Amino acid sequence: MDRIRRTERLAVMTKILMDSPNRILTLGSFCEKFGSAKSSLSEDIDILRTIFAQYDLGTLETVTGAAGGVRYRPMITGEAAYNSVSEVARLLSQPGRILPGGFIYMADILAMPDVVEKMGNIIASQYYRQEPDFVLTMETKGIPIALMTAKALGIPTVIVRRDSKVYEGPAVNINYISGTGNRIETMSLSRRAVKEGQRTLIVDDFMRAGGTPRGMVDMMKEFSVSVAGICVLMSTAEPAKKRIDGVKSLLMLESIDDSTGSANIRPSNWLQSMRKATNS
Amino acid sequence: MDRIRRTERLAVMTKILMDSPNRILTLGSFCEKFGSAKSSLSEDIDILRTIFAQYDLGTLETVTGAAGGVRYRPMITGEAAYNSVSEVARLLSQPGRILPGGFIYMADILAMPDVVEKMGNIIASQYYRQEPDFVLTMETKGIPIALMTAKALGIPTVIVRRDSKVYEGPAVNINYISGTGNRIETMSLSRRAVKEGQRTLIVDDFMRAGGTPRGMVDMMKEFSVSVAGICVLMSTAEPAKKRIDGVKSLLMLESIDDSTGSANIRPSNWLQSMRKATNS
Repeated sequence: MDRIRRTERLAVMTKILMDSPNRILTLGSFCEKFGSAKSSLSEDIDILRTIFAQYDLGTLETVTGAAGGVRYRPMITGEAAYNSVSEVARLLSQPGRILPGGFIYMADILAMPDVVEKMGNIIASQYYRQEPDFVLTMETKGIPIALMTAKALGIPTVIVRRDSKVYEGPAVNINYISGTGNRIETMSLSRRAVKEGQRTLIVDDFMRAGGTPRGMVDMMKEFSVSVAGICVLMSTAEPAKKRIDGVKSLLMLESIDDSTGSANIRPSNWLQSMRKATNS
Repeated sequence: MDRIRRTERLAVMTKILMDSPNRILTLGSFCEKFGSAKSSLSEDIDILRTIFAQYDLGTLETVTGAAGGVRYRPMITGEAAYNSVSEVARLLSQPGRILPGGFIYMADILAMPDVVEKMGNIIASQYYRQEPDFVLTMETKGIPIALMTAKALGIPTVIVRRDSKVYEGPAVNINYISGTGNRIETMSLSRRAVKEGQRTLIVDDFMRAGGTPRGMVDMMKEFSVSVAGICVLMSTAEPAKKRIDGVKSLLMLESIDDSTGSANIRPSNWLQSMRKATNS
């Protein structure tokens, strides 16, 4: 009977942990749910930790102390991260995605839940230590990846708008220099969206010259929010000098072949070295 | 030994099934992963089905035939759905959310991954039978709920824009009558975003007069795409006559109390009756 109960508990705990990534769940809450002793549940956690590690399902950590418990993180690193990002590079390199002006049609890939969830998990894996309070993104295409990154980090998303909206209340508007055309654009964020002293992780889909992330960093200064990191799905090799430093990118757009209408896209160097580090 | 192996398999299978909602996973794929016999895995599935039902974790169905296998759906219905929606109603009814013009500040709630995932699962639960090919939404605030609905249904999201973008390629633009002001607005959808003959589920965050969902239905006519259903997180009691019929809503905004700055929001009638049906 106890064996069957354990089987049951482990399946249910897997579901519960996956539903609340990066949140500390107390052993007490599981005791209550299953009517089991803490000692049994501690053993359950140990077994789950081994299984998760063995099958590359993410990490399970025991957090000690008064607010202690167990915390699940859908970590994707090394070989698995490299392979997932390579697959997205392959999809985006398909012929026919190049649009006039050297733009790439990415909207379909950026709205596939399974793809953006994997990318979000990979991005989150890089920022658990920084403990951001929310993920900041700029509407529209980056929202799905930002949301999935926030889900993995167990924090909310905050969306910067292109202009003030009546349903966002009082807002701070700032001007920024748009990547390509050196045009002055406006971005707007509701006053009540964030709190002074918080830390943010900035996530976006695409960076060329870096004007948009730079604008988001400037916006955060207006709110006295510090920036724990900036990560984009794809950045371009050119221009090499961006308007902002320290941006991490999953994909690098090396060049565009106008004759075939396809792009040369590859996983960024840090993903390649992380992969080697895992294999060695 | 076999017992330990089963424990392991069930935890890993739970994770894999949750990662691919509404997709048929073959027994063969699990046999390969675990090196186990089909008969053991059939038993595993039976056990998991019982556990999932017992703990209200969603449904696990066996699909027979050549393309057969097992399919997980994160169904939330009845009492659990009612309670989740009530909690969102409570959050949105908090004083201080009312903005000039009778708008409600919802942006923070609409960007919380755990909240929108639950709402997405509830919306998806209503449309599995209709088998939509994609979820359609209009930028910006509805994107997180639409994405999570699409995730539960195992299908992509498609985002309608307010204007054509250089990175979306050739697009179809249509005019529609915006809910409140009787203003003519434009919406734009990339030509390559959807295919003729597909079926869509339209998901949005808020509906007052219904101009936006009506515009999305008209847009789908231009693409020869049929509409399997329309669902919004919240609709207003007034005006009672909307520009479009048959829209399902999770929440009903009954009235706004200007003196306290709070709104009277409750779960829609169909959620209440679904709850009663479960309890009776």
